[in-house]
Amino acid sequence: MGMVEIIGISAGVLTTAGIIPQIFKAYNTKKVEGLSPVMFSILTIGVGLWVWYGIEKEDMPIIVMNGISFSLNALMLLLYFRFK
Amino acid sequence: MGMVEIIGISAGVLTTAGIIPQIFKAYNTKKVEGLSPVMFSILTIGVGLWVWYGIEKEDMPIIVMNGISFSLNALMLLLYFRFK
Repeated sequence: MGMVEIIGISAGVLTTAGIIPQIFKAYNTKKVEGLSPVMFSILTIGVGLWVWYGIEKEDMPIIVMNGISFSLNALMLLLYFRFK
Repeated sequence: MGMVEIIGISAGVLTTAGIIPQIFKAYNTKKVEGLSPVMFSILTIGVGLWVWYGIEKEDMPIIVMNGISFSLNALMLLLYFRFK
């Protein structure tokens, strides 16, 4: 695996994992007042398109990471409507 | 411009623009209690790495969109510490 792939996978891991602390915070505090559901809706659609882009480009880091992001953003959206 | 580039740019626009409603909500309500600063810190670093990945791959949609995302995520982080 080359340096570029390592950068891509690290970037993907961070931009995917980034939402996890927010999911835990919302789940633990049940407080979602300051959060924007519009943000998570747009991000869910956006990362869905990144998955499509990755498929067209046959770029595995983009496909795998944005696929996980899609699920996490959708989960965050569910938590928002659950606790609002 | 081919279909794949249009998908990439649309994905980039949405995943970049996605944070804008959250920035407006935080700025207007001054309420950031439910937000996770850890999320925005990780995302800022992550999109920074995506910019580096895009430079290595000479992939303009990835460079431009993640560069804007970097600035917006950093701005959101500033707003968090300003209003918390």
